[in-house]
Amino acid sequence: MVVTVVGLGLIGGSMVRRLRGFMDAKIYGVDIDTETLRLAESDGVIDKGYIDGKSIVGESDLIILCLYPEKNVEFVRENAHLLKKDAVLTDVSGVKGYVLKGIEGYLPDGVEFIGGHPMAGRETGGYKSSTDTLFDGASYLITPAKDNSARAVSLVRSMAEYIGCRHVVTTSPEEHDAMIAYTSQLMHVVAVALCDNPLLERSASFSAGSLRDCTRVALINADMWSELFLENKDALCDRIDEFKESLDAIKLATKTGDREGLKNILARASERKQKWLSETVK
Amino acid sequence: MVVTVVGLGLIGGSMVRRLRGFMDAKIYGVDIDTETLRLAESDGVIDKGYIDGKSIVGESDLIILCLYPEKNVEFVRENAHLLKKDAVLTDVSGVKGYVLKGIEGYLPDGVEFIGGHPMAGRETGGYKSSTDTLFDGASYLITPAKDNSARAVSLVRSMAEYIGCRHVVTTSPEEHDAMIAYTSQLMHVVAVALCDNPLLERSASFSAGSLRDCTRVALINADMWSELFLENKDALCDRIDEFKESLDAIKLATKTGDREGLKNILARASERKQKWLSETVK
Repeated sequence: MVVTVVGLGLIGGSMVRRLRGFMDAKIYGVDIDTETLRLAESDGVIDKGYIDGKSIVGESDLIILCLYPEKNVEFVRENAHLLKKDAVLTDVSGVKGYVLKGIEGYLPDGVEFIGGHPMAGRETGGYKSSTDTLFDGASYLITPAKDNSARAVSLVRSMAEYIGCRHVVTTSPEEHDAMIAYTSQLMHVVAVALCDNPLLERSASFSAGSLRDCTRVALINADMWSELFLENKDALCDRIDEFKESLDAIKLATKTGDREGLKNILARASERKQKWLSETVK
Repeated sequence: MVVTVVGLGLIGGSMVRRLRGFMDAKIYGVDIDTETLRLAESDGVIDKGYIDGKSIVGESDLIILCLYPEKNVEFVRENAHLLKKDAVLTDVSGVKGYVLKGIEGYLPDGVEFIGGHPMAGRETGGYKSSTDTLFDGASYLITPAKDNSARAVSLVRSMAEYIGCRHVVTTSPEEHDAMIAYTSQLMHVVAVALCDNPLLERSASFSAGSLRDCTRVALINADMWSELFLENKDALCDRIDEFKESLDAIKLATKTGDREGLKNILARASERKQKWLSETVK
């Protein structure tokens, strides 16, 4: 068995740190950065690193695509003809509809693709930020299609559990993208918009924990997140609109001095948050 | 020397936990809840507790008002005629203009009031949530007026440092309220508005850290925060409007596929956040 991880950044790097021993597989890494490959080899987390995926995809039973979504699509298109029969491909992209549409019709018979998305991240990227605990306790979303085999689904699921994820959750690409637009993308939009104010520059003495926490993810990878926003633009714009409606309701109650109305909005949110806390995995 | 803390909730309770030994003062507590007074006495953090401030304000050299702003104003108005000559009053309210206006003209000659605001809090309130480390490393804002004596300012400053605050920052009530509308109130508005979406209820498996952190303060004290919002409504509505403009810019760039524009907004926010992190106290 050969498992190949394409892209040894924060996610791919953290994966290979935990894949050792999975089904007794050889673990290979593909990355355009030779220094990253050298480091991953000397850390002992990959058996061998390759600059070009072409050298190794033909031998790989499981290929985990950890590039940005556009590059994942590109990789599949360029290497589809080299893939081993019965190979299983999966990705870790933060958008699912875009990737599935991008590779549609490219895979040879017998090769399967199952979308995946580990719910984990950090504010800093790259192999040097990767850790062997990134996935501990996180959930891992997969979006199998009707024609995926039980064998392929089971392989991806086992891999996700092996690297430390507590729950592997099956959902549709549409549901994934609608929910992620809220749980992840909107949070990044909010953090960025909060920092898009010159007041931040003289706020250091005026702030307690709320500013720090609400803006944590504003330390953002602009290349990756602008790509993710654009690849899920309809759902994200819907979530922004819903959020603006809530802001307007709070502003109206404040402006008009509607104390009871304001208290109700706050109490309802607090109750929902309390319930969420009691249900959340991590 | 007698120091009296009025209101032994999260802030007042955390204060008395650290005031022991301050200028060798007797520490008294005032609270409407007898169980709280009994607890604080048995914890040894107050020398004696009083249900009614009237019994003790006449002996107090420093009075720290830790009720909600409305109640702080009411307390001053009702007890002003009982205050000791040379007494110094301070408060911990999250709004300053409202409190100063509310007590204007009520204080007898020789008694001074200096507004204060420790930059610390938690999602849960009450004496039982109070801790002796709440203020460690936090900044403490004070808003002295022109006619405050150096003696009074120095007393409040010493108290703030004694309870663990790292920086005592002097500012005007107007600047305080404008900045707090951003650094604290807007963050609470955002957290609440993010939770004001039914999607939260089925988001548990779809969320990583960003949703948790952006909504941390949505577990909100609805009574207190609706009061604070209304008492600073003009500044808060301005901050909400500025925030909505930033949201609109991100939405427009997303909707129109303006990748460079989107990247620029994200990169600018990230840079500002990085600078903020390097400058922030806590």
